Amino acid sequence: MKKLFLLFTVVTMAFSMSAQSTTSPVIGKDGSVSFSIKAPKADTVRLVIDTRVDTLMQRQGDKWTLTLRDLEPDLYMYYFLVDGMKVLDVENAHTLRDVMSVMNTFVLDPKGDCAMAVHEVPHGEVRAVWYDSPTLGMKRRMMVYLPAGYEQGRQRYPVFYLLHGSGGDETVWLEQGRTAQILDNLIASGNAEPMIVVMPNGNVDESASSDMSDKGNVQPTFRHKHWMDGEFEKSFIDIMNWVDNNYRTRAAKRYRAIAGLSMGGYHSLYISANQPDDFAYVGLFSPAIKRMDQGKCPIYDDIESKLVAQFKQRPKVYWLGIGKDDFLYKDNAEFRELLKKNHLRFTYHESGAGHEWANWRDYLEIFTQLIFK
Amino acid sequence: MKKLFLLFTVVTMAFSMSAQSTTSPVIGKDGSVSFSIKAPKADTVRLVIDTRVDTLMQRQGDKWTLTLRDLEPDLYMYYFLVDGMKVLDVENAHTLRDVMSVMNTFVLDPKGDCAMAVHEVPHGEVRAVWYDSPTLGMKRRMMVYLPAGYEQGRQRYPVFYLLHGSGGDETVWLEQGRTAQILDNLIASGNAEPMIVVMPNGNVDESASSDMSDKGNVQPTFRHKHWMDGEFEKSFIDIMNWVDNNYRTRAAKRYRAIAGLSMGGYHSLYISANQPDDFAYVGLFSPAIKRMDQGKCPIYDDIESKLVAQFKQRPKVYWLGIGKDDFLYKDNAEFRELLKKNHLRFTYHESGAGHEWANWRDYLEIFTQLIFK
Repeated sequence: MKKLFLLFTVVTMAFSMSAQSTTSPVIGKDGSVSFSIKAPKADTVRLVIDTRVDTLMQRQGDKWTLTLRDLEPDLYMYYFLVDGMKVLDVENAHTLRDVMSVMNTFVLDPKGDCAMAVHEVPHGEVRAVWYDSPTLGMKRRMMVYLPAGYEQGRQRYPVFYLLHGSGGDETVWLEQGRTAQILDNLIASGNAEPMIVVMPNGNVDESASSDMSDKGNVQPTFRHKHWMDGEFEKSFIDIMNWVDNNYRTRAAKRYRAIAGLSMGGYHSLYISANQPDDFAYVGLFSPAIKRMDQGKCPIYDDIESKLVAQFKQRPKVYWLGIGKDDFLYKDNAEFRELLKKNHLRFTYHESGAGHEWANWRDYLEIFTQLIFK
Repeated sequence: MKKLFLLFTVVTMAFSMSAQSTTSPVIGKDGSVSFSIKAPKADTVRLVIDTRVDTLMQRQGDKWTLTLRDLEPDLYMYYFLVDGMKVLDVENAHTLRDVMSVMNTFVLDPKGDCAMAVHEVPHGEVRAVWYDSPTLGMKRRMMVYLPAGYEQGRQRYPVFYLLHGSGGDETVWLEQGRTAQILDNLIASGNAEPMIVVMPNGNVDESASSDMSDKGNVQPTFRHKHWMDGEFEKSFIDIMNWVDNNYRTRAAKRYRAIAGLSMGGYHSLYISANQPDDFAYVGLFSPAIKRMDQGKCPIYDDIESKLVAQFKQRPKVYWLGIGKDDFLYKDNAEFRELLKKNHLRFTYHESGAGHEWANWRDYLEIFTQLIFK
């Protein structure tokens, strides 16, 4: 049953250099995007682009093709459904994972001005580090973005803590969120201040993303122990201490921001309300609002009076963003009412669409231009 | 055509925590590995595991299943062929890319003692850095592994330069090569010295791996300009300078190793022969040997006399590894004859199988235990 290949294909490709560099999907100068897949036996083939497109492709002989002409510049994730079976594009080696779903990806940047694309600008450094969490009793992995010039200079920098949502981990803001690209580009153009960005793992039952688990072949999941029950918030001080001890930070409220998406917005809301002396900038991106701990954790008690106390010290930016179609829209509307009722000043950004990365990349791009100024 | 989903599935999963954590493939305590895929309409389904398995699966209703009982502990990459169409395992979110091919992956470590698996040991830090290459006139990305304790300590460390093959880039030794895991585990057990590992990009026509390209939607390829023509070797001094300027290195031959696979073995062979004062340890993993520059680059001239000069200064370890079925076996046999003829002392490791990652992970595990001792 086992079979050793002589790998003639690889040999030929590697040593005759006969391989062609293919590009899929094919992106036209007009911004059109053409997809194709070979599926001679299929009855139907659909193209699915994250939450934005789900449409039939047209048969052309053995292939199925489709050209889209109305896509906005952005990062896209897609796959094919061949008679209902998920199939990736074998002509595109670039993929990203969204919780359990692996999809192909491409960047549409027809004018070369998208903040989430890689441009020829000074690039920051990305580090995967293991910090010590005495509160949780483990070493945990997090990702750190250091702005271009950090390694060579002596300057101190502000710190932006950026938190993922449920089902995510320490890698997602770099992968789907394009944090390094957005920061590289905004810092290079002078629209954002040079800053350190810290992306921890908000699932306190794991030390790292599932592919780096020391517990064997673990899959990513929405189902975590201690899910939104206050444990991550309690342990957050370990992250701040480690960062201030290991990097050239400006360790003061004026130079500290926190933001997160969905569950990470929830974490940001409650961490900043419980630590009113720590964050001058708070960003809630499509945040979960309602407490999920069934009344067990004091971190979530008396949020209204905590917010009032927090705002007495005047956060420089308190930013809320949500999409019109987000399933958390109603909770967010109620939260805004609570802020207004108490005359607490915040910035509100309402976008189209729902609970999705296209929004969160936009919110990151907006928020990072408002902080540390 | 466009369609906005309300994402009921995500909502339900995220907020009722009803999602089940699945694990695929299912790994039994006896080391058996069970694969399954739903493909009701298929006539045949094959399971392909990198270069090691290509076999029919058995239909069971709507599903196709197969259990393998004789796999060695290792990292595996696999996919399904459903009526000849490549399909990934939707129950397994973990994938790796081998040049253009994306595959699912799993680690088989039934006894918990595989060096390439993640274990609960002190973890080193992994950095994606951009170094300046005056020779090539660009900033280029490389990956750096720093051993556990580097960030907190003051100690200086030896440096191991580890080079990828044709079609690879700066990421592959970390991804398929499991360098961070192998080093974490061998350092923790005392079998390898704490060391810095530097993994540059050997394709001098790109600044970084294709997903980080500033040239748009570029795919990985074997076909690079300046492919094995001496340009990378010429620019190697830029990497060494940057590393010695930016890390606490022991910047001397006694504390410097270089190794690489295939094209990276070729680079290691010629760099070390042209810089006889720089590397006390050389590892050639399934190396390409024959010069590919059509006589244009002096770096490849007079290799025999360069090797004689290099060995006069007695490299502490000169290590060659190759698989019996490797398409480069004959070239390597001739190279060994050349070394023997000149009485140049080397260590030779002949393994089974061919030009593949299972061998290169093994060679890395062996070589890293021999250096800096």
